[in-house]
Amino acid sequence: MSRNVASIALIDRVKKGEPAAVARLISRAEAGHAEVRSALSQIYRLAGKAHVIGITGVPGSGKSTLVGKLTEKIRSSGKKVGVVAIDPSSPYSGGAILGDRIRMSDMANDPGVYIRSMATRGATGGMARAALDAVDILDVAGYDAVIIETVGVGQDEVEIVRASHTTIVVSAPGLGDEIQAIKAGILEIADIHVVSKCDRSDANRTMTDLKQMMMLGMVSADKTEWQTPVIGTSSVSGAGLDELVGAIEKHRHIAFETEAGRQRRLSIANFRLRKTTETLLLERYGDAIAKAATPLAAKLMAREADPYSLANELLDSSLSGGQSHEQDARSKIA
Amino acid sequence: MSRNVASIALIDRVKKGEPAAVARLISRAEAGHAEVRSALSQIYRLAGKAHVIGITGVPGSGKSTLVGKLTEKIRSSGKKVGVVAIDPSSPYSGGAILGDRIRMSDMANDPGVYIRSMATRGATGGMARAALDAVDILDVAGYDAVIIETVGVGQDEVEIVRASHTTIVVSAPGLGDEIQAIKAGILEIADIHVVSKCDRSDANRTMTDLKQMMMLGMVSADKTEWQTPVIGTSSVSGAGLDELVGAIEKHRHIAFETEAGRQRRLSIANFRLRKTTETLLLERYGDAIAKAATPLAAKLMAREADPYSLANELLDSSLSGGQSHEQDARSKIA
Repeated sequence: MSRNVASIALIDRVKKGEPAAVARLISRAEAGHAEVRSALSQIYRLAGKAHVIGITGVPGSGKSTLVGKLTEKIRSSGKKVGVVAIDPSSPYSGGAILGDRIRMSDMANDPGVYIRSMATRGATGGMARAALDAVDILDVAGYDAVIIETVGVGQDEVEIVRASHTTIVVSAPGLGDEIQAIKAGILEIADIHVVSKCDRSDANRTMTDLKQMMMLGMVSADKTEWQTPVIGTSSVSGAGLDELVGAIEKHRHIAFETEAGRQRRLSIANFRLRKTTETLLLERYGDAIAKAATPLAAKLMAREADPYSLANELLDSSLSGGQSHEQDARSKIA
Repeated sequence: MSRNVASIALIDRVKKGEPAAVARLISRAEAGHAEVRSALSQIYRLAGKAHVIGITGVPGSGKSTLVGKLTEKIRSSGKKVGVVAIDPSSPYSGGAILGDRIRMSDMANDPGVYIRSMATRGATGGMARAALDAVDILDVAGYDAVIIETVGVGQDEVEIVRASHTTIVVSAPGLGDEIQAIKAGILEIADIHVVSKCDRSDANRTMTDLKQMMMLGMVSADKTEWQTPVIGTSSVSGAGLDELVGAIEKHRHIAFETEAGRQRRLSIANFRLRKTTETLLLERYGDAIAKAATPLAAKLMAREADPYSLANELLDSSLSGGQSHEQDARSKIA
């Protein structure tokens, strides 16, 4: 209960843009305690002003460097920029340090820039939920643009980036076969394509390939009001960054002021509601399932039973157990 | 019903090792229809003989090439080898073609080798469930060793590989910063480390680094009966492959004939039961949630409500709806 009260007390400080309050509330959202939910409910209702920009790309695409440069560029126009970087480095150890976070540290003392790493871990749906809560917290704290960065591999990771107003997919020249194959899976989610490292001589080839794939309709073109641009950037020379910022600004207009944009935001809301409901559903029964599963595992290991039959039995008993537990609680209140 | 009967009819043919029957049953498992479950329940009870080997590594580590060489090597000793390759290339388009599948095609006409790609897609928990069902089907079809290959990024992907008897993590020399950071997250799950491309001059450095990290305890060492080896391999010269096959064989002994191995298999069974139960739970309410979510999305988009409160309401009504539906069904039977 006190965690709930303490979190609600943070909201006023978040609204004033205090970085320490932002940090604390994001940490609580990430920890996922149910008591923080009423604070996050309030945050959600207060949010909705920020332009949410999703950036993804295959490993080695130079995506993190681009996020650094882009943050600097948007910030230089006077806007406040928040970054939520989903960090795949430690699914199990829980740490979250990427070299690029440090590279961005020239902005570390600017209160107009807030960078947060989140490790990929925890319960099903937990990462998406926590990342989207963090975006809302930054929104309420007055950050005009909020960037979500993920690596373009893994279902959950790609889904998070899709839940943004403007999705940018970063490609790079000269990556191996496996990387190219992974890339093929994320091309179709782009509103804007970036080819990084365009100072390299083989970058033109990468840009031409992308444009041709789009012309051949190999990459989705279901966007009547928007022609997905292909922009070459270089973090060495700074080339292409102005063009990129211009394209982002143009797409922001689509997102907020057209029917296509409204439809997109509606489907993001729909996604988020389903995700949250699934998370809460697993949460309601997760402990009961884990507790009931343990004594059955030996039977399963010995192949004396199969997972489907056991899971069904387990579910029937957990669901009825949960039900009667709830009824108990209700009768106590009454 | 007919899909159920047809699937059960396949089991006898799977037991005889008919590749067409194996292919069809895996496809049905992948599609995830509930009617195939009783066939998969039978398959599970029949399985349990194969040595399940999980192989993962960062993109560009040469993991797919290694899987090809290893398959050839194990096969040359007379054993049958099945491969389930989780393909990250198309989370949305659903296709599943990697260049390395083609490279392995010199084994395409050998009935003792079966290679199957699976795309990463579908419902929460669906990929792990389908992949593990595929492993069991190959097990029942008489494949002595079954390899599961995934890219070492993404929660679900890493979890799948952990659910094997012997986990191999592939590293390679000379990859970028981002890749190295990702690698750090999967090192601790290895039973065997492979450094691929060891014909390269910088491979020694990678091997030394790995060994040092292990000595410093930076990588888990909670394996009293097993010293995690670091093996250098080259797909060019074939170096290290015999040593790797030897280490796999030694670890198979640990997995099947020691108390530590029994504990590991028990925790895999536990993981699988929890995963299956969660999948079935989401399945029971998934449609109801999706149907109920759609008309609420507009309210959420307008920030007139928040996802947590809406999800809780939605869950209360779906759960009570599901309950009464079940009771209806029961009273009809009675």
